[in-house]
Amino acid sequence: MLAEFDLIRRYFMSSQEASTASNGVTLGCGDDATLLVPRAGQQLAVSVDTSVVDIHFPREAPAFAVGHRALAVALSDLAAMGATSRWCLMALTLDQRQFADDQATHAWLADYARGFHALSQQHATTLVGGDVTSGALSIGVTVMGEVPGGEALTRGGAQPDDLIAVTGALGGGAAGLALWKKGERDLEHPLLRRYLLPEPRLTAGVALRGLATAAMDISDGLMADLAHLREASRVGAVIDLEALPLADELESTLGHEAAIRAALSGGDDYELLVTLSADDIGLAQQRLMALGLSLTVIGRCCETLGVSAADQSDLTGYAGWQHFSGEAP
Amino acid sequence: MLAEFDLIRRYFMSSQEASTASNGVTLGCGDDATLLVPRAGQQLAVSVDTSVVDIHFPREAPAFAVGHRALAVALSDLAAMGATSRWCLMALTLDQRQFADDQATHAWLADYARGFHALSQQHATTLVGGDVTSGALSIGVTVMGEVPGGEALTRGGAQPDDLIAVTGALGGGAAGLALWKKGERDLEHPLLRRYLLPEPRLTAGVALRGLATAAMDISDGLMADLAHLREASRVGAVIDLEALPLADELESTLGHEAAIRAALSGGDDYELLVTLSADDIGLAQQRLMALGLSLTVIGRCCETLGVSAADQSDLTGYAGWQHFSGEAP
Repeated sequence: MLAEFDLIRRYFMSSQEASTASNGVTLGCGDDATLLVPRAGQQLAVSVDTSVVDIHFPREAPAFAVGHRALAVALSDLAAMGATSRWCLMALTLDQRQFADDQATHAWLADYARGFHALSQQHATTLVGGDVTSGALSIGVTVMGEVPGGEALTRGGAQPDDLIAVTGALGGGAAGLALWKKGERDLEHPLLRRYLLPEPRLTAGVALRGLATAAMDISDGLMADLAHLREASRVGAVIDLEALPLADELESTLGHEAAIRAALSGGDDYELLVTLSADDIGLAQQRLMALGLSLTVIGRCCETLGVSAADQSDLTGYAGWQHFSGEAP
Repeated sequence: MLAEFDLIRRYFMSSQEASTASNGVTLGCGDDATLLVPRAGQQLAVSVDTSVVDIHFPREAPAFAVGHRALAVALSDLAAMGATSRWCLMALTLDQRQFADDQATHAWLADYARGFHALSQQHATTLVGGDVTSGALSIGVTVMGEVPGGEALTRGGAQPDDLIAVTGALGGGAAGLALWKKGERDLEHPLLRRYLLPEPRLTAGVALRGLATAAMDISDGLMADLAHLREASRVGAVIDLEALPLADELESTLGHEAAIRAALSGGDDYELLVTLSADDIGLAQQRLMALGLSLTVIGRCCETLGVSAADQSDLTGYAGWQHFSGEAP
């Protein structure tokens, strides 16, 4: 049985030391709590997300992807606020009995930590708290970011006639999960990557400050998340199904109709859903293009509450998404 | 199956609304992240603690106690830093199959939330993030507090000749757990209360700012935690076993020898272990007395590394504590 203190020190502290000093951490991991210095004039954006084995990711998923993904889904919430990520805390619950021996445990942890750290470094996010406990595999990640006072993007600011747009492409998360369940294991497959290694859109969120009137991330599927945004902003929406940006290889893999369905109601895409004035879409698209990312208009807000398709398609039945629980609609 | 959003809204948001506006929360739960405004000149103290069923608490523990305890053990880390608690985030993983029906789930959640909120309100700690997922019962709590720059208590400041002292009384957590395992279920029993409803020493931590040279909380047992403090401060320690403050009814329940053993190596007490100059002990005791809390000198730091007993008792074998895992030494 590996002691918690050793685990944290071995896999989660050493690689952080370099970035600690430069990121507002005055006392790092190893004491009862970590001491941080927020920047003046910034608001703190905080969120927590738990990833549970067999619910949010498959038990046999590569440890690297488990680590990456647990952090990515939490960071995605900061992206949706237009916040810059600074710090995170990670609570790992691990069932050592699932491993053949200590060596297998170490190998899993090293690979997991590699996935977690690669993403945390990419987004300059310092791990400032850790806890390792015994139990069913589960990872709780608390993320802390900063956004200048008054500039955060929220769900509540959409206005009638605002355009509705999404970053990147949709449907890849759901299709990747479906492929995984069918036995696909090639991590180079673009759809599998979309599911296992989602990229939080942090730079896009920052770039959309001052332009987006509302924003949120798409974790439960476009229609389900759009419903939250509509409710918070008290607007309706008309969606142009043919405008939905489909993930690479989505249509060739699933066919047209199922691809549209995956884009509408599949979850786990972690793209940003935003609204913005028609006057600002050009500038917003320019800024995202500079980041190598598309911003596709998929519809428009309206005064009449509810959601409809521009071509009068029936949108009922696209509401939910249950992640990996096997109960996808 | 209860939807996550409903769960969070029903049990964890409504009772928070009153305190939200007055505690630096500019955007509360319900968006992708919560926005907070730290106070100028303060450092943020952050920590995360996970409580797992059958590891950290018994499956049959009252839901009220589970909620209280999950928050208490996390707040105890802020107390050890001398920080004032301000905010927390809670990730609840819940296996609804453990309940007979939805009504039983609701009853458990309502009682759990009552325990969590009672303690959060007592310490003016606003819940600013929540996540509810399906899986083996587990609660991850991230706490965020504030401490004036440079005034935090750490583990690393003890000096040779400093006195070693503890707040409150020891051994009650271990004895309460032992009683629980023997079938004791009376929540009024002082030892059971010590185990199930520990009180984080936040006010004591603040009162000891400027006096304590080092501090940490006792979660794994006095000897185990003192070892961390000795290591961080690079000092040794001499402990006076007869000076250990024993929890109410500890000696009458276990007998003298086992009571001393529980105080030395039992965990789950969540008292503060501090060091301070002999010149400051009087003032420190005065301040804590004003809070209704004792501060008992139990030994002294020394230059010679390692730990020994003032009466030459053999202290080997008092190092560890495994919480509820059933593997207590």
